[in-house]
Amino acid sequence: MVTLKDIAAEAGVSITTVSNVVHHRQSRVSPERVKKIWEIIEREHYVPSMSARSLANEHSFIIGVVTHLTPLNAGSTMSDPFLSAFVDSIEKQTREQGYYLMVRSVENADDLITLTRSWHLAGLVLTGMFQDSFLEASIRLNIPVVLIDSYVENPELCSIGLEDEQGGYLATKYLLEHGHRSIAFTSPAIRAGGVIEQRYSGYIRAMKEYGLTPDSSLVFTQEITVEQGRKLGRKLAGRKDITGIFSSADILAAGIMAGLSEKGVFVPKDKSIVGFDDNFLAQLTIPGLTTVHQDAAEKGALATEMIIRQLEGKPIPEKHVILPVSLVERGSVRRL
Amino acid sequence: MVTLKDIAAEAGVSITTVSNVVHHRQSRVSPERVKKIWEIIEREHYVPSMSARSLANEHSFIIGVVTHLTPLNAGSTMSDPFLSAFVDSIEKQTREQGYYLMVRSVENADDLITLTRSWHLAGLVLTGMFQDSFLEASIRLNIPVVLIDSYVENPELCSIGLEDEQGGYLATKYLLEHGHRSIAFTSPAIRAGGVIEQRYSGYIRAMKEYGLTPDSSLVFTQEITVEQGRKLGRKLAGRKDITGIFSSADILAAGIMAGLSEKGVFVPKDKSIVGFDDNFLAQLTIPGLTTVHQDAAEKGALATEMIIRQLEGKPIPEKHVILPVSLVERGSVRRL
Repeated sequence: MVTLKDIAAEAGVSITTVSNVVHHRQSRVSPERVKKIWEIIEREHYVPSMSARSLANEHSFIIGVVTHLTPLNAGSTMSDPFLSAFVDSIEKQTREQGYYLMVRSVENADDLITLTRSWHLAGLVLTGMFQDSFLEASIRLNIPVVLIDSYVENPELCSIGLEDEQGGYLATKYLLEHGHRSIAFTSPAIRAGGVIEQRYSGYIRAMKEYGLTPDSSLVFTQEITVEQGRKLGRKLAGRKDITGIFSSADILAAGIMAGLSEKGVFVPKDKSIVGFDDNFLAQLTIPGLTTVHQDAAEKGALATEMIIRQLEGKPIPEKHVILPVSLVERGSVRRL
Repeated sequence: MVTLKDIAAEAGVSITTVSNVVHHRQSRVSPERVKKIWEIIEREHYVPSMSARSLANEHSFIIGVVTHLTPLNAGSTMSDPFLSAFVDSIEKQTREQGYYLMVRSVENADDLITLTRSWHLAGLVLTGMFQDSFLEASIRLNIPVVLIDSYVENPELCSIGLEDEQGGYLATKYLLEHGHRSIAFTSPAIRAGGVIEQRYSGYIRAMKEYGLTPDSSLVFTQEITVEQGRKLGRKLAGRKDITGIFSSADILAAGIMAGLSEKGVFVPKDKSIVGFDDNFLAQLTIPGLTTVHQDAAEKGALATEMIIRQLEGKPIPEKHVILPVSLVERGSVRRL
């Protein structure tokens, strides 16, 4: 295999000069030399070793997308439609900007530290990591880190959140405007500081605007799996008092619709439902799912940009971004 | 940061000895020394550099899952439910066996070679790469490669396929047994040597067993996107002659069901449909989708195992595996 040294010898320049050209630090080399060196590189099919480059640089050009491995999500990290669209977007952005993508689940903060240090990871995108231990580890690692769906505003970390409270409000208000009063809130566990807590707050705000005081008999929490969603749908089929349902994820809403139908209860004739995400499932349910739109691809692109700008020493307009939401009307809500 | 040298000095052994222990070549070191060295490693929080390890070894411990980037799939590689479950499985297997996962799309064989060589990739899992140029490149790379959904039986490469012809046969036969005779075949483009060609062959075999000669007016090919599926559904709604539909992917079947419903045509009352994959979508459609089952997680686990066994110099029972399929009955087919 051709080495940097071979290229340098053939071009009659130093190894440092070739290295500068290969790593696009071309301003330090004359245009003629840059041209000549690239010609030799192409002719000789030189491939720079990323491992050597990782050792020579402060980082490896690998961006890690890391999710928290828990007993509940084991083995189905990417199978969430939001997450797969999000990772797709990061793959595209890293590829187009000369970076690489490593996908990994970690059990705890020590795993995160070991992973990052072993690979000299250039940056981290963290999803589903709410514990303080992960935040402390992220700060200690001293590399660009973007927290996804986090409201932590630590000055040493970037974060991308969503108008989750407003999303919960819009979804619930839409049901209220269509005459529904007994509205269920369905979601995974409501955790302090997490997105579900915000969506739940928006639900409460809308209900109160209509003079309603929702009680705990309207709140249903369980893990977001297709099976759990269908089970909840079968259960809700028996709750004749509930006419409207807000689900904090489209995949949960689709599961509930399937479960309701198993009991002969149909949307929107018998019950109305609003989802959250606006991923491809919202276009596959029958009827189409009225839902709160968020842009997973934009989230991924922004996360990648935040990391690369920091690596390149460029300023970041905002370290803590909250992306907007909007309501998309389809056919899953009936006027009472 | 603590280095290998620091550990060696503290343990009073050579750097090579510490390296042997860290890289699990412990048989060359006495048990007492192994124990002592690990104690120091843990106490000092030593993290071996994977970049250094990549340079020292023949490979980097990174397994690349590579998809073919085409104008049609740009930006939606992982958003296919089969592929996301497959990648989830590889992430789990690599993590549990001390390897790492890099996800990447490539445009052509040169990209594949550059990616592999830059990172000294330990092995490659290739999906959606049918061109000869990719096969030639894979052989030239001289590392373990597993082709997914491929029927190429090159002795230098591994491949994992599926009983695709049998799947197409089972799906079509099921519709025939339920009294359907005018059965549409819906899929992405039928390419020579690809899985769709096989599923189509199975469809033809079943039709012929019933003395039917399917003509081209029953074959509908288009890209597998939710929008294209729904469009096809709206079109099929107008084809009163067609009572049964076989779709080569669940996501296409779900899209067709949604499109049919937009025109007031419902499954299974007005038309029956059978899918292929048995991913989570088959449990979310209303009614549940009768479909051909394949195990994406098993495919991912097997691909990882094939690569790691080769890296460890262990024999591979079979280089070319064809996984079985079976029909899963749900509610999308009505007896005519």
